Amino acid sequence: MTRIKKFGGSSLATKERIKNVARQIVDTYKSGHSVVVVVSARGKTTNNLIEQAADINPNCAKRELDMLLVTGEQQSCALMAMAIHSLGCPAISLNAAQAGIISSGSFGNARIKTINTDRIKQELEKKNIVIITGFQGVTKNGEIATLGRGGSDTTAVAVAAALGVGTCEIYTDVEGIYTADPNIVPKAIKLKEISYDEMLELATLGAKVLHSRSVELAKKHNIKLWVGSGLTKKEGTLVKESTMEKMLVSGLAMDKDISKITVVGVKDVPGTAFKLFSSIAKKNIVVDLIIQAMGDGKKGLKDISFTVSKKDVKETIEALTQNNGAFEYEDISYTNDFAKLSIVGAGIVSNPGVASAMFEALYDVGVNIEVISTSEIKISVLIAQEKAEIASRSVHEKLMQLSLGNVYG
Amino acid sequence: MTRIKKFGGSSLATKERIKNVARQIVDTYKSGHSVVVVVSARGKTTNNLIEQAADINPNCAKRELDMLLVTGEQQSCALMAMAIHSLGCPAISLNAAQAGIISSGSFGNARIKTINTDRIKQELEKKNIVIITGFQGVTKNGEIATLGRGGSDTTAVAVAAALGVGTCEIYTDVEGIYTADPNIVPKAIKLKEISYDEMLELATLGAKVLHSRSVELAKKHNIKLWVGSGLTKKEGTLVKESTMEKMLVSGLAMDKDISKITVVGVKDVPGTAFKLFSSIAKKNIVVDLIIQAMGDGKKGLKDISFTVSKKDVKETIEALTQNNGAFEYEDISYTNDFAKLSIVGAGIVSNPGVASAMFEALYDVGVNIEVISTSEIKISVLIAQEKAEIASRSVHEKLMQLSLGNVYG
Repeated sequence: MTRIKKFGGSSLATKERIKNVARQIVDTYKSGHSVVVVVSARGKTTNNLIEQAADINPNCAKRELDMLLVTGEQQSCALMAMAIHSLGCPAISLNAAQAGIISSGSFGNARIKTINTDRIKQELEKKNIVIITGFQGVTKNGEIATLGRGGSDTTAVAVAAALGVGTCEIYTDVEGIYTADPNIVPKAIKLKEISYDEMLELATLGAKVLHSRSVELAKKHNIKLWVGSGLTKKEGTLVKESTMEKMLVSGLAMDKDISKITVVGVKDVPGTAFKLFSSIAKKNIVVDLIIQAMGDGKKGLKDISFTVSKKDVKETIEALTQNNGAFEYEDISYTNDFAKLSIVGAGIVSNPGVASAMFEALYDVGVNIEVISTSEIKISVLIAQEKAEIASRSVHEKLMQLSLGNVYG
Repeated sequence: MTRIKKFGGSSLATKERIKNVARQIVDTYKSGHSVVVVVSARGKTTNNLIEQAADINPNCAKRELDMLLVTGEQQSCALMAMAIHSLGCPAISLNAAQAGIISSGSFGNARIKTINTDRIKQELEKKNIVIITGFQGVTKNGEIATLGRGGSDTTAVAVAAALGVGTCEIYTDVEGIYTADPNIVPKAIKLKEISYDEMLELATLGAKVLHSRSVELAKKHNIKLWVGSGLTKKEGTLVKESTMEKMLVSGLAMDKDISKITVVGVKDVPGTAFKLFSSIAKKNIVVDLIIQAMGDGKKGLKDISFTVSKKDVKETIEALTQNNGAFEYEDISYTNDFAKLSIVGAGIVSNPGVASAMFEALYDVGVNIEVISTSEIKISVLIAQEKAEIASRSVHEKLMQLSLGNVYG
């Protein structure tokens, strides 16, 4: 049987950890499995490289940043192969080009288009443990592009899909998926299972354990994701199609990496929002919560606010100002003062009490709600960032009370 | 006109140096030239990576070491492109695969077979400054191989040859080629010009300014090599076909990176030396000075000693022991106690006085000569490593006296 294992940067941060991971891989190999390993860059490598780049050019080209960043995973890969060799097992490292990982050329945010598995299969037939660079692909023209932060998860799932392997093992520095970040909400509970859709919402909403695109891809190809710690032997969390235990609320996520941009004084006529957001969409920027407010009614104007990831603020504002011809506005401003708090659960749609419990919990600790956004399985609210932690704890506590005996209902 | 500039690791060690180099490149570009730049890894990067590898696996596979090491140049490349962008000029980084540098698959010691210049030319036509990773190539199968230490010089010359550019500019941390290492021989003189053959001998014999294969390649394609400092504006040295000023002795080189291996008690019959050295040659290991000595004459045995680069000792001994069947021996030993001191000059062959002056200078300071090896333009001696510096100064001094008014004769 072929096993796909992905190891994150913290599992590879030191020589000792690399050797630990190598031993674990070799154990699996020696028990008779073919093993494909996907690795991230070691420890803080990616952040260090980003700092070096920013130091030389604060507005560095995304293509060049990708050329720089991909070296981190290639280093991990080679060192892991060496560590496995030192344990007496055959292994070979493959970078994206060698592993046949063909991606789009959208630098910094590329998508895997296809994986040509010929080389991977050849190496597995030679009984090699195959170590693949995560986070990156090559275009048909040989350009190198990264898949965005956390993209190694996506690489691992894509490799599993391409090889027809049903489960992808994601080893990380936490022991699984929790109902909330245990650092903020000490009462958070580790889940045994969670559905793709719930995990997807949690990941999209700021839970950093899994890259949301990896969950999308796993759902699409019906690949189970096992998430757990590479350092402890404890049970992890399984992400899969349908969970045995339907939960009212499966988790709470908080995202501080957002900026709220406000476009003041746009014409309140049909098509304005379309033109405004299409100018942003052209830049591949994801817009999240959107609020329209009446501006100067006499002039027929309104204000449009929305949230984007902090890193996209500059480009979003550029897109808006450069598309000046398509729509008019009076001013553009932004603030980083907000956080997005979300709860996710398959039971939310059928239990209106969940939303009111959440709002009550926020009221209890004096937190004002700026925007509310809901879907079938989630409720998100925009709140003051300084209240994010207290709000998280209050909401988690309330939902636990509400659903005692009902959490696994 | 197209200019080819190669920058070594010390020119790129800090952010400030990268910016300095970028400014120099931009000056050339703005004066109307197309510019192709070849870069090494920054500062101590390559050594650090080698240490990391050795720390994880002291006998790491050459393929994996190459996968690890090539990341250093790719980082330099990307950062240099960013630095040039920040000065408002267009630039693009290309790794070996992108630049079309096709090499053999001899990991750690690959040869450039051909350069497919399509991409480089496309980028130059787009008015981009092209930054290429030195030191590396890809095989037809996409395997990544390095050209051996200092291989970035070779990359630069190969790119010049492929683009039909007549001069290759090598920027380094010294101001040119000196008659000896100025750190050891304070009276060493910087040369204005030196011929390919003399430079080749000096490089092969341990002068570390230029990679010997880069000189071979430059000679083959009649490309002039300009060698000088990237940090000062002083004149450098030109390496070219025939020099205007024929020198008696153009330089002195010292090589401490040698081990002397002795194979004791091999049969003194025809074919033994052939079998012995062919077993080493199969491993692509370069054997230098060779000494045969009579061993136990009654048994018809002799001893064969030879020098190899320190890094090759282990593999050489393996090659010898594994080929046990092909020839017999009593014992194998090695020592790192020797250094090789060489003098190089087109005038040596026609001036027998040079050799005797060298030997006299060694005698003057009490240095014993273990082996002597000569060619038309060089004399090498193996001496005790602890006497290497004093021997260098004595020989340099004597040759300067001998050829006062004759150095440029």
